[in-house]
Amino acid sequence: MEKVNLDDAFGSFDEHWSPRLAAELNGQAVKLAKLDGEFVWHQHDDADELFLVTSGQLRIEFREEENVVLDEGELLVVPRGVEHRPVADEEVEALLFEPSGTTNTGDTESELTKTDLERV
Amino acid sequence: MEKVNLDDAFGSFDEHWSPRLAAELNGQAVKLAKLDGEFVWHQHDDADELFLVTSGQLRIEFREEENVVLDEGELLVVPRGVEHRPVADEEVEALLFEPSGTTNTGDTESELTKTDLERV
Repeated sequence: MEKVNLDDAFGSFDEHWSPRLAAELNGQAVKLAKLDGEFVWHQHDDADELFLVTSGQLRIEFREEENVVLDEGELLVVPRGVEHRPVADEEVEALLFEPSGTTNTGDTESELTKTDLERV
Repeated sequence: MEKVNLDDAFGSFDEHWSPRLAAELNGQAVKLAKLDGEFVWHQHDDADELFLVTSGQLRIEFREEENVVLDEGELLVVPRGVEHRPVADEEVEALLFEPSGTTNTGDTESELTKTDLERV
């Protein structure tokens, strides 16, 4: 049984918007991502998505409700079907919980779309 | 949509071995727990369980393999069916991720068994 040290795991990669797989359990994935700048607007039709910020400040923008600003140690669940756009004015490190196989850009195809995530 | 601040949430209760519900998504629960001392040996037959330590040092003991020591910022998935016992020599704060409805003491009934968790 192998533990994951978040500092070591985040230190093992530099790419933005390219989540790494930290763990899988019960059909769900724990992903680690470095974010910088504006992501694409998208939604996940069949998946709720949890963001937990471990470093920096992440703004999650919504079309139809108020944006939410997450500082270090804050989490938010974005329900399925809700269009959103993560924006990081400076680099953010975040942990995501969502069903395994959830694509980062949801229903939006983009050059930022990532599949086959590397394991940390 | 309501964010959860982990410091505020942990500050809102004192009881040990009495997890609070921080969020639910995709049939899974994010729970916050304060741990101190030895918990009961137990296993979850149908649920993998993730521990992420946010403060302190948690030792997860196993019957048939080496114990794992988790410091702040470290996570471990205990697979379903694996008997384990969390032990905190001093107070630990931890985030758990597991299917909604998973009981803290698994297959072991104990005075520490908790159901109907309060929301933070």
